[in-house]
Amino acid sequence: MVKKFIIGIDLGGTNLKCALLDTNLKIRAKNSFSTRSFNNKPKLIVGIVGIINSFIFNHGLARSSILGVGLGLPGPIDTFGGIVHFFPNIKGWNNVGFKKILEKKLKLPIVIDNDANLMTLAEHRCGAAAGYKNALCLTLGTGVGGGLIINGVLFRGADNAAGEIGHLPLNENGPPCGCGSRACLESYIGNNTIIKEASKLFGRQISLEEVSRLAGHNNAKAIKFWSKVGQRLGLALSGAVNLLNLDVVVIGGGVAGAGNILFKSVKQAIWQRAMSVQAKRVKIFKAKLGVDAGLIGAGYLVKERLLK
Amino acid sequence: MVKKFIIGIDLGGTNLKCALLDTNLKIRAKNSFSTRSFNNKPKLIVGIVGIINSFIFNHGLARSSILGVGLGLPGPIDTFGGIVHFFPNIKGWNNVGFKKILEKKLKLPIVIDNDANLMTLAEHRCGAAAGYKNALCLTLGTGVGGGLIINGVLFRGADNAAGEIGHLPLNENGPPCGCGSRACLESYIGNNTIIKEASKLFGRQISLEEVSRLAGHNNAKAIKFWSKVGQRLGLALSGAVNLLNLDVVVIGGGVAGAGNILFKSVKQAIWQRAMSVQAKRVKIFKAKLGVDAGLIGAGYLVKERLLK
Repeated sequence: MVKKFIIGIDLGGTNLKCALLDTNLKIRAKNSFSTRSFNNKPKLIVGIVGIINSFIFNHGLARSSILGVGLGLPGPIDTFGGIVHFFPNIKGWNNVGFKKILEKKLKLPIVIDNDANLMTLAEHRCGAAAGYKNALCLTLGTGVGGGLIINGVLFRGADNAAGEIGHLPLNENGPPCGCGSRACLESYIGNNTIIKEASKLFGRQISLEEVSRLAGHNNAKAIKFWSKVGQRLGLALSGAVNLLNLDVVVIGGGVAGAGNILFKSVKQAIWQRAMSVQAKRVKIFKAKLGVDAGLIGAGYLVKERLLK
Repeated sequence: MVKKFIIGIDLGGTNLKCALLDTNLKIRAKNSFSTRSFNNKPKLIVGIVGIINSFIFNHGLARSSILGVGLGLPGPIDTFGGIVHFFPNIKGWNNVGFKKILEKKLKLPIVIDNDANLMTLAEHRCGAAAGYKNALCLTLGTGVGGGLIINGVLFRGADNAAGEIGHLPLNENGPPCGCGSRACLESYIGNNTIIKEASKLFGRQISLEEVSRLAGHNNAKAIKFWSKVGQRLGLALSGAVNLLNLDVVVIGGGVAGAGNILFKSVKQAIWQRAMSVQAKRVKIFKAKLGVDAGLIGAGYLVKERLLK
């Protein structure tokens, strides 16, 4: 049998990652590009096509050896129709038939999906949620994204918009949220908010990495800071856990790097606020695949969709 | 072919309902009994066995014509193991192998499940949620119970405890809840709480039915009262809808009788607090099957589990 490969693309806010995976979903090669020069729709399309073509050329691959290209994209996606509904942080994308455009230009099978879904798929298939039937995977960053595995399958909801744990309300009233509502989890623990809070708490500009480092050295302020973040995250998770009786919650993204103090506080909040059966059941794990999760997820997407 | 029947049982806090259903899930006969005299475990078992036996006798049924008996029970149930974990409001039930006990005494196939799950099953198969893939069904009463349909199938979660929409936290802090947490939806809109609030608001003992009637006659206080209940319910539903991108939410139980004012306020809250894609998608319906939902659900449970 001829050896087959998959190309995975993970489009983020600041860079675009590209990887060559084998059909066992091992990353054989990867590359990263700044998205700064792809600042409008035609440029982004030309950019992605160029990156994939040169990736194929540089690795001396025959087009026939490529099973497909999977793309994880930062916004709501109609994965079966191959349509980008919109990108919250990239202008000019409104119901774009992106799959068709790329297939025409690349002459390769294309599959697209939301990036949080692909991270979830990867963490479930070979990461921290492996072996569990019902899982919620979160990425903590500027936004708080999430994806759901229900009965072993990625659950998309009616419009492929399921998993929005970042927009569970934590209070009847509270700070405005980017989604148009208020008091959502994201409005309390999104990076922008907590960086501001940390800087206020420490009386100077401070990065979250430094607050994590300080917490690791038992700095009382830093510990209190991450405990509060964990408490709020844990409260939202209590709601999700009561509603879904999940086996496991996987927490990834930059903020997850805060480590033990954050996780301890999340678990304590769930213990206090979720129902006993649900709280006893659910495991809280740190994501295992780190920055590669989206690329590996893109690989699984291609494999599970195209290799029947 | 010999005509087959199903017996459905719905055990509630104040009464036990028993119905004879045909395999098209039409109720052919039903009966209701006070549970007051079944105040301990042996009495409840003997009571249920007696009721089923006399029901069979009174309707002149051959035991061989009965496909099975389905029971909806008020607590967490291991439906596949046939075990009652416990009943929150009936003492002395702790990991009871109820299915086995009944099968031995009745010589009939027995299936047991949680009552909110059966209401959900019925509303999905032939009620307000019929034809939708992803649904949340609620019963508003002393407790706020719920059940989930995911991809057309009753979703049970790891311990058959999924669907607990009544225990979504509405605030970081708030009134204590029966589940041991605080600020849960149920602690704000459970019957006991809102009856007290209504009586305070009107300066006298008042029933929820009367408040509904007054609201129907445009009484400003009554309208404000139901709007507030709807707003809180809508806030919890916004969280569920963002997380699950549901097609439909079905609201049943006594409080649902408040009618238009309640539903209008629920929809408004979802419109304000849920994300636009999810809010646009979800339909909010009143339950269709009323007090028979549990019995019809018990029928579906038997049919879907035993008639392969």
